[in-house]
Amino acid sequence: MFDSKEHSHTRLNILTGDWILVSPHRMKRPWQGKVETVPADNRPSYDPTCYLCPGNKRSDGSMNPAYTDAYVFVNDFSALLPETPDGGESDQGLLVSKSETGICKVICFSPDHSLTLPVMQEDAIVKVIHLWKQEFEELSKHKHIRYIQIFENKGEIMGCSNPHPHGQIWASSSLPLELTKETTQQKKYYTQHGKSLLSAYLDLELEKQERIVVENEHFVALVPYWAVWPYETMIISKRHVQTILQFTPEEEKAFAAILKQLTTRYDNLFNISFPYSGGMHQAPVNDGEDHAEWHWHMHFYPPLLRSATVKKFMVGYEMLANPQRDITPEAAAATLQQLSEIHYSLR
Amino acid sequence: MFDSKEHSHTRLNILTGDWILVSPHRMKRPWQGKVETVPADNRPSYDPTCYLCPGNKRSDGSMNPAYTDAYVFVNDFSALLPETPDGGESDQGLLVSKSETGICKVICFSPDHSLTLPVMQEDAIVKVIHLWKQEFEELSKHKHIRYIQIFENKGEIMGCSNPHPHGQIWASSSLPLELTKETTQQKKYYTQHGKSLLSAYLDLELEKQERIVVENEHFVALVPYWAVWPYETMIISKRHVQTILQFTPEEEKAFAAILKQLTTRYDNLFNISFPYSGGMHQAPVNDGEDHAEWHWHMHFYPPLLRSATVKKFMVGYEMLANPQRDITPEAAAATLQQLSEIHYSLR
Ligand SMILES: O=P(O)(O)O[C@H]1O[C@H](CO)[C@@H](O)[C@H](O)[C@H]1O
Ligand SMILES: O=P(O)(O)O[C@H]1O[C@H](CO)[C@@H](O)[C@H](O)[C@H]1O
Repeated sequence: MFDSKEHSHTRLNILTGDWILVSPHRMKRPWQGKVETVPADNRPSYDPTCYLCPGNKRSDGSMNPAYTDAYVFVNDFSALLPETPDGGESDQGLLVSKSETGICKVICFSPDHSLTLPVMQEDAIVKVIHLWKQEFEELSKHKHIRYIQIFENKGEIMGCSNPHPHGQIWASSSLPLELTKETTQQKKYYTQHGKSLLSAYLDLELEKQERIVVENEHFVALVPYWAVWPYETMIISKRHVQTILQFTPEEEKAFAAILKQLTTRYDNLFNISFPYSGGMHQAPVNDGEDHAEWHWHMHFYPPLLRSATVKKFMVGYEMLANPQRDITPEAAAATLQQLSEIHYSLR
Repeated sequence: MFDSKEHSHTRLNILTGDWILVSPHRMKRPWQGKVETVPADNRPSYDPTCYLCPGNKRSDGSMNPAYTDAYVFVNDFSALLPETPDGGESDQGLLVSKSETGICKVICFSPDHSLTLPVMQEDAIVKVIHLWKQEFEELSKHKHIRYIQIFENKGEIMGCSNPHPHGQIWASSSLPLELTKETTQQKKYYTQHGKSLLSAYLDLELEKQERIVVENEHFVALVPYWAVWPYETMIISKRHVQTILQFTPEEEKAFAAILKQLTTRYDNLFNISFPYSGGMHQAPVNDGEDHAEWHWHMHFYPPLLRSATVKKFMVGYEMLANPQRDITPEAAAATLQQLSEIHYSLR
C-alpha cells in the first residue's frame, strides 16, 4: 500500500501551482560529496573593518551614523535603480525585454555585530519590524513601484558577504515571477471560496497537527506540505491581512516572538548559526487593485540537509526538470518541533 | 537613452514564459563573500576506491564489469522506483499528492577515471551518444514513463559526489515542471506559426551573431537571450527534431564535436575543470501525442561568475522573487566565443 513516508510521490504547491518530487527512501544513501565549512561564530560586538557597524566607513565612502537600533540605507550596489531610462525591445516576439526601475535598501537589524535574529531581544526585533513597516510604507509611495521584497540572506553559504545582522529590501517596477504565481493562485481560490487560500490551509494544518513547528496567538510557523528545501518553513498570520502595514501592536510582538522562536530552533538543529534565505510575501502595490485575496506570509529556505556541513544540492534534475527532496516535510516538522526554545549558545 | 549593456531590465524566456532580471552595472560591486575551493584536477586513470571504475565494487555490493566504453547501470540510490504503489491524497484541494514511479540510471562516460567530456576523443563521445539513444529507446518502452531526463552534474560544487566522468538518467511517470512549461510554450508557437519556436529563434540568433559561442553544420551553441546563470548556454539542433533518436550518424558526430568544443571553452574560461549541470530537453513519451512542436536542445547551467572560486548565488531575491543576473548574456557569449578550442591542459 502507498505510504508517503516510504514511497516517491509528487505534491502540489497550492501557492504557486507547481509540483515537487518527494523521494523519502533516498535519505538512506551515504553522502560522499562536498562538505561545507562552518564559519566561525564568535564575532565581536564591534568590528572596525565591518562596513555595516555604526560609525564605520561604507564602500561608497560615506559614514554610518552611530545608530543604536535597526538602521536602513540605500544599497551601495543596488541591482535596481530609480533613474533607469525607459526602453527594451521585441524582435518577432523572440527577443523580448523591457527596462526595470526600482530601489534597493540594506537594513541592519542591530548595531551589535555579534548578534543574529535568534539571539536578539524581542523588543529589538519589534524595532526591526517597525522599520520594515516604515520602509514598506515609504517605498509604496513611489508610484512606479509594484512590489516590495523584504528578505534576508543569512550565512556565507547563502551568498551573504557580511556576518553583521542585516537584511535587504528590493522594490521593483514589475511584479516578480514568484509573486505573479502566488497572486494568480490566491485570486483563483478567493474568487471561488470567498476566503483566503492560506486561511483555509492554516485551518487544515491546525486540525492535522502534522507539520506545525511553533504557534502563538497570532502566527503559526510550519513546514508547508509542499516544502522543497529540507527544513523549509513558512510563518503565516492567523488574521487574513494583505501586508505588514496591517499588523497591530500585539501582532508585531507576536511576530517578533515567533521569529525568535523559529530561528532559535533552526540554530539548535545542528548547534550552529543556521543559514537560510528568508523573506515576506505580501500584496503588490500601486496597481489599482485591492488584492483582497492576498494573505501575508514569510518563507524560510535553508540549504542544509543532514548536518552543519552537508547541504541539499538543487542541481541537474532540479534545475532541468523538477524540484526534488528526500526527507518528508512531516519528518522535518517533527524534528524542528521537538527542539529546545533556548538557544544553544545560552545553555 | 536605454542601453541594455548598462541599465537594469527584464527579459522573457520564450521557452518557459518566465522573465529574468538583468542588472549589468552590478558587475562593478566588489566581492567580499564566500570563495570556493578548486578541487584537484590530477586524477589517475584508475582509482581503486572509485565505485564507478571498471572492475570495482559498488555501494550495493555488486561489481562493475571491466567495461571499455560508455557503461550504464541502475542507480543504487534511485530517487524514482518502478514498483511504487499507486496512491496519494487530495484533502479539500489543499493537501494534494500522488505517487510517482520511474527508473534512475547512471551512465559512465568512459572507463578512464581521469577524463571529462572536453578531454575525451570525439569517437568516445559518439559512443556516449549511442548509449544515450539506446537508453532513451529502452526507457520509452516502459508504458508508465512520460519523460526521460538525461543530465550530468559536473564538479563537486554541483553536488557531484564522484569525479569519475558520468551522468544520470531519471525517467518519470509524470511530466516534470520545466518540461510542462516548455511544452506549452512550444505548442503555442507551433500552432500559430507552423514552425518550431527554436527554429525561428535560431534563425534570428544566426542573423544577429551576438550570442553565438560555436557553430557547426548541424548544431549551434549559444548563450540564450534570457540566460539566468552567468555563463549559461544552450545547444540547439539546426534540424527540427523531437528527440535524440532522430539524429543521423552525421548529426551524432557533429553533436559530439560541439559538446567537446563547448566544454573545452568552458574549461578554458578559468583554466579549471569547469562545473555545470547540463542536460537535454526533448519530447515527452507515451502520452499519445506526436509533439511536432518539440525541438530538441541541451542546457548548460554553470554556477561560476567571476573566477574559479567566485560563484553566482541564487538566493534571497532569486528564490523569493525573481531570477537575477549581473553580466549580460551578450558579454558572456563574447567571452566564451573568443576562447581557444585547445584544452588548457594540452597546451
Ligand atoms: O544522485 P546524486 O548525484 O548523488 O545527487 C545529486 O544529483 C541529484 C539530481 O540532480 C540531486 O537531487 C542531489 O541533490 C545531488 O546531490
Ligand atoms: O546583495 P548581496 O548580498 O551582495 O548579494 C547576494 O544577494 C543577492 C540577492 O538575493 C543575490 O543576487 C547575490 O547573488 C547574492 O550574493
